[in-house]
Amino acid sequence: MYVPEGFLFSAISCGIRKRDRLDLGLIYCKTKGIASGVFTKNTVKAAPVIIGKKHIKNLISRAILVNSGIANACTGEEGLSRAEKLIEECAKLLNIQPEELLPASTGVIGEQLPLERILPKLPELVKGLSETKYDLFAQAIMTTDTFPKIVSKKTEEGITLLGIAKGAGMIAPHMATMLAFVLTDATIKKEDLKSLLDKAVEKSFNCITIDGDTSTNDTLYAMASGIKNIERWEEFVQAFMKITKELAYLIVKDGEGASKVIRIIVKGAKTKEEAKRFAKAVAESPLVKTAIYGADPNWGRIFATLGKTEIAFDPSEIELYLNGLPWIKNLEPQNEEKTIKEQLTKREIELVIKLKSGKQSFEMWTCDLTEEYIKINASYRS
Amino acid sequence: MYVPEGFLFSAISCGIRKRDRLDLGLIYCKTKGIASGVFTKNTVKAAPVIIGKKHIKNLISRAILVNSGIANACTGEEGLSRAEKLIEECAKLLNIQPEELLPASTGVIGEQLPLERILPKLPELVKGLSETKYDLFAQAIMTTDTFPKIVSKKTEEGITLLGIAKGAGMIAPHMATMLAFVLTDATIKKEDLKSLLDKAVEKSFNCITIDGDTSTNDTLYAMASGIKNIERWEEFVQAFMKITKELAYLIVKDGEGASKVIRIIVKGAKTKEEAKRFAKAVAESPLVKTAIYGADPNWGRIFATLGKTEIAFDPSEIELYLNGLPWIKNLEPQNEEKTIKEQLTKREIELVIKLKSGKQSFEMWTCDLTEEYIKINASYRS
Repeated sequence: MYVPEGFLFSAISCGIRKRDRLDLGLIYCKTKGIASGVFTKNTVKAAPVIIGKKHIKNLISRAILVNSGIANACTGEEGLSRAEKLIEECAKLLNIQPEELLPASTGVIGEQLPLERILPKLPELVKGLSETKYDLFAQAIMTTDTFPKIVSKKTEEGITLLGIAKGAGMIAPHMATMLAFVLTDATIKKEDLKSLLDKAVEKSFNCITIDGDTSTNDTLYAMASGIKNIERWEEFVQAFMKITKELAYLIVKDGEGASKVIRIIVKGAKTKEEAKRFAKAVAESPLVKTAIYGADPNWGRIFATLGKTEIAFDPSEIELYLNGLPWIKNLEPQNEEKTIKEQLTKREIELVIKLKSGKQSFEMWTCDLTEEYIKINASYRS
Repeated sequence: MYVPEGFLFSAISCGIRKRDRLDLGLIYCKTKGIASGVFTKNTVKAAPVIIGKKHIKNLISRAILVNSGIANACTGEEGLSRAEKLIEECAKLLNIQPEELLPASTGVIGEQLPLERILPKLPELVKGLSETKYDLFAQAIMTTDTFPKIVSKKTEEGITLLGIAKGAGMIAPHMATMLAFVLTDATIKKEDLKSLLDKAVEKSFNCITIDGDTSTNDTLYAMASGIKNIERWEEFVQAFMKITKELAYLIVKDGEGASKVIRIIVKGAKTKEEAKRFAKAVAESPLVKTAIYGADPNWGRIFATLGKTEIAFDPSEIELYLNGLPWIKNLEPQNEEKTIKEQLTKREIELVIKLKSGKQSFEMWTCDLTEEYIKINASYRS
């Protein structure tokens, strides 16, 4: 892993919801860092989202504080004041301003943060800061995740980027129960980081969906320590885009109970908007997702789902390709069912849906729907 | 069961998809009946839907012919011509005009009707017509249904109504994989039947959702034999509405793998449209449906799902009631978790979501989401 210069990490266990698991993580920037953020569009916003949206406007950002276990959402005034207290105490120990600290939470909605268990542990958290604990930080932000999500890149001119994320269920376009952090040692203006981040989100996190549900807590922060000058802007942009794409991919791969990653690529739609509606309908159809889970070449369900959008098209003009193999053309299978079934048993599925309505395309990633998803979500709290 | 005068029923086994199960059903009206229909809004329409939409315009309707096993959807010109051939042969045997026969199909998409197995059996089907075989007809139209769906009513003045339906998965507003037939011996004008049917659908089938998916084949026919005059119109309307509501309820109850029926009632929304969007979001949320399956009083998921609509509201103003018990008010539980959990274990759940934004309400029915749903749909075709 490449770790951008200027950042330290720490993680501890406070017993926020469960004992003996890391549940509080801290990222500290030794320099006067700058940051940008993207937040959930859900009307119900968690306390850390409300505060984060304010703090991100500050010109300098120095730290990111994240807890798992409790989302601090639907907690009213009390939730807000507890989040503020936590930030204040942590900022004091770091010797920074409260508004230089960016908060995030993930976990169960409707419960208050147990400050009595968290606050006494803050000195330990701050004392533990080190360059190498990014993996412990990644563990501390996990909920139903089955593995920590960390990616990194170094550009040819030596600029380093590190991405850390959590997210497994409740992932839909517009940043559902997902936390992600992208760190770099580049020098970049706040407004440039903002537009780069928005562009990257559009091509990564906004193209993934797991169950169509979205959350109260989704947050993505990008932070730059400003230690290295960018000479080759395009190279940096590419690395940044790759980091967010790879994080999004890892989130889908870890979709709750998922056994397969599915890339749905709609081509030849009349408008971008229609391409997206087709892709989203297929990506969120429980019938398509269960058929793929069962490796059942039930292409009729894909057609029915496309039709569900009520966008006009001629079914006989649609072509399907599975992992590069022609599947359906003129409403006729182009390969033996056995061959298609075999492709459907793979862990990575690419489904291309080709229309003849225009030239617009859209790609969306999702996962299959399994009994395990039900098990996880029928008993998440207990 | 009350059976309206003038109707005969029959059902046989043709081995359309599986052997030794009833898969072809016929309803015959001895008089010059009149009919009305409502069809799927899915862009991909099955051959029987395309033909049904034409035939329903005919002033007289005499019969309804339904097969299960194969949907005859995504079958192109060949599918249309097979459906026409089947209708023609059946009409000939019944001594009626082809356009007096209303077709419907349900089953797997993308396969052709095996006319070679169906046509030779038509004489047996017609010969078997009798007043008592409505239950066999109800069985013949089943696919993943676990029980036949039949309801009937007799108004005080003696008018009889009989409703028969199929549908288990793929049920969403706008008539998803659902077939339903309402028969009556009343005398009613075609245009009156049409407006009554539209009104009834709005309050019944368009208020249910199982997995948010919709189908290529959804069809609802209402047919009147015109034997009895209606003196008390309102009484008849009430009975008609009840028949459709009860059929819709049975479909939700038989939702694929469902263990619980959930009635979601949104009150106090600013507009009808917003009330409906809230109700639909909750009814289709996999996270809410799995929590209810697991009897987990995870009210945060309900709030997050309401917020997902991106309709503005103040979370602290929302009140939740479960089976009549106050659940959440001012973001605080109003009853012990144990009490709420106990209610969630019941087979019938009523969830009232009360906003303070206005006076509009909307009711929607759905079912929980279980491992069984996945099992059924991962292997439906095999």
